[in-house]
Amino acid sequence: MLDDLVSGVLRGEERAVARACRLIDDREPRVAHLIDELHGATKQPQVIGVTGSPGSGKSSLVSGMVTQFRALGKRVGVLAIDPSSPFTGGAILGDRVRMQRHFGDPGVFIRSLATRGAQGGLSRSVQEHVVVLDAAGYDIIVIETVGVGQDELDVAEVAASTIVVTQPGTGDDIQAVKSGILEIADVFVVNKADRDGADRAVFELEQRLELARTVGAASAASHAWQAPVLKCVALTDSGLPELVQALAAHGAWLALPEGAKRAAARRQASAERLIFSLVCEQLARVLEVELKRAAVRLVERNVSPHAAAAELLARVGADTVSES
Amino acid sequence: MLDDLVSGVLRGEERAVARACRLIDDREPRVAHLIDELHGATKQPQVIGVTGSPGSGKSSLVSGMVTQFRALGKRVGVLAIDPSSPFTGGAILGDRVRMQRHFGDPGVFIRSLATRGAQGGLSRSVQEHVVVLDAAGYDIIVIETVGVGQDELDVAEVAASTIVVTQPGTGDDIQAVKSGILEIADVFVVNKADRDGADRAVFELEQRLELARTVGAASAASHAWQAPVLKCVALTDSGLPELVQALAAHGAWLALPEGAKRAAARRQASAERLIFSLVCEQLARVLEVELKRAAVRLVERNVSPHAAAAELLARVGADTVSES
Repeated sequence: MLDDLVSGVLRGEERAVARACRLIDDREPRVAHLIDELHGATKQPQVIGVTGSPGSGKSSLVSGMVTQFRALGKRVGVLAIDPSSPFTGGAILGDRVRMQRHFGDPGVFIRSLATRGAQGGLSRSVQEHVVVLDAAGYDIIVIETVGVGQDELDVAEVAASTIVVTQPGTGDDIQAVKSGILEIADVFVVNKADRDGADRAVFELEQRLELARTVGAASAASHAWQAPVLKCVALTDSGLPELVQALAAHGAWLALPEGAKRAAARRQASAERLIFSLVCEQLARVLEVELKRAAVRLVERNVSPHAAAAELLARVGADTVSES
Repeated sequence: MLDDLVSGVLRGEERAVARACRLIDDREPRVAHLIDELHGATKQPQVIGVTGSPGSGKSSLVSGMVTQFRALGKRVGVLAIDPSSPFTGGAILGDRVRMQRHFGDPGVFIRSLATRGAQGGLSRSVQEHVVVLDAAGYDIIVIETVGVGQDELDVAEVAASTIVVTQPGTGDDIQAVKSGILEIADVFVVNKADRDGADRAVFELEQRLELARTVGAASAASHAWQAPVLKCVALTDSGLPELVQALAAHGAWLALPEGAKRAAARRQASAERLIFSLVCEQLARVLEVELKRAAVRLVERNVSPHAAAAELLARVGADTVSES
């Protein structure tokens, strides 16, 4: 039955892809076999990350990008990450509504991912979804993340190209710099650029990028990628063709020596992260009962944090590995 | 020398506290001993989380809260979390400037934490900082986080009371619901309430809370905490006394049976998370070389993700633990 699912995904059947995604969400043990089977068939399509703070209009921008890619005949998979409640487990899909124009288009697959609170869980889940969409033959995979934080930095490693979306007059540009988002951006978009202050936002971002280049000697080299700052109005598709062009240019740069080096480093880091989160996930299962017990003792102050951790490590024998 | 540091922290010396925080940031191996020593001296002060999207004025609000707590004679520790670059490692402390009015006050300790990209690393780092500030005798510990996402949900577990900050007219209230922040909020603050749309923001939030209560039967019980929605103008300290009162009320509720149950559950979850991140961190050190090798093979498609993870687990012997 799992083999049917695998071959369904490999044939690019939407229903099979959706079922595979559900298995990942539900952390079904079968996922291990599924991913391992599909992994051999991956072709590494262009994975594009879209991030930015809430309200910057990311969903509309992604929807506009999908339209552009469809016009070029590309099949597009979209993974929208809603940090959802660890309490209810539910993701509210409110503005997926903006994606509505793509419903019924067999060349577009849209999936909302919940973030269910497990350590490294989101990163693992995203990477497994990418494997499924990749194996299903989607040419472009867009990963949309909400907010700024560790999630975005993790996702940036999965994506070959990362778009950071801001809007005029919210100080988002400054926040972007603060939160280290500047370094992960391959393309900046000032969305809602028909509003006041768009030019100033572009100017300020460019100044900050220039400053960062001057400070970081490495990236000042002529073969480094210089992240462009584009103005878009996602709701009217204005600036969208230029965005797609910029992504193509970045994709071409990734094939050049300097770009290929960075892409390889990201792939390596991403692979390390995936394997390690699978290790931790499995370990969490193995140690579940003992971890609960240790935590009770920690809360009661009958053990200290590191002593408790050392005991658990000794339990799995990992404390001796380094010597063997 | 470490013993000097421990006793310095226990005496509440600011310099010792700062040095302990630096050791945690630098992940010095000595931290294990330090935390274990200090853990025995913790008294569990009130830990308050403050979260909300960028630009909502969290820092100003925290600064105003500190003023209020100081007027009540409380010593306050503030941990400000800036998701900083995993590439540069640097945190830009721009708006810590707003905290300036508290510099030189020995009853206030302010520390910016970087988030350095390690799995579970932030959560662990925050918890270790809390242990240090707790042992140093701060009565109140405020943890300020930027953005929405997993970080916030993790920090919510560490904090006994969580404030979610929004501002009028940005749709932040809706985003808050979407991202599951609704469930973690014990107190809502509509900041910048002198702006247009403040009343509407309060009204909409209250409606959503009401709806959530109706849907979730459990929390509809009369002994459940009903998160208030407060209007503040942090820059003029308007609404700040009411906020401090609401926090006191929530603290009192946490002492009642229903509240104590929730507090205990959070403490347990938080303890599990701390121990497990220490386990994973140690494991990452033990497996470093092999993880790199496995990732190379994964990228080259000479191994599948779960097979690679299984090999690493077998290496530490953890694959057999469940059977022993």
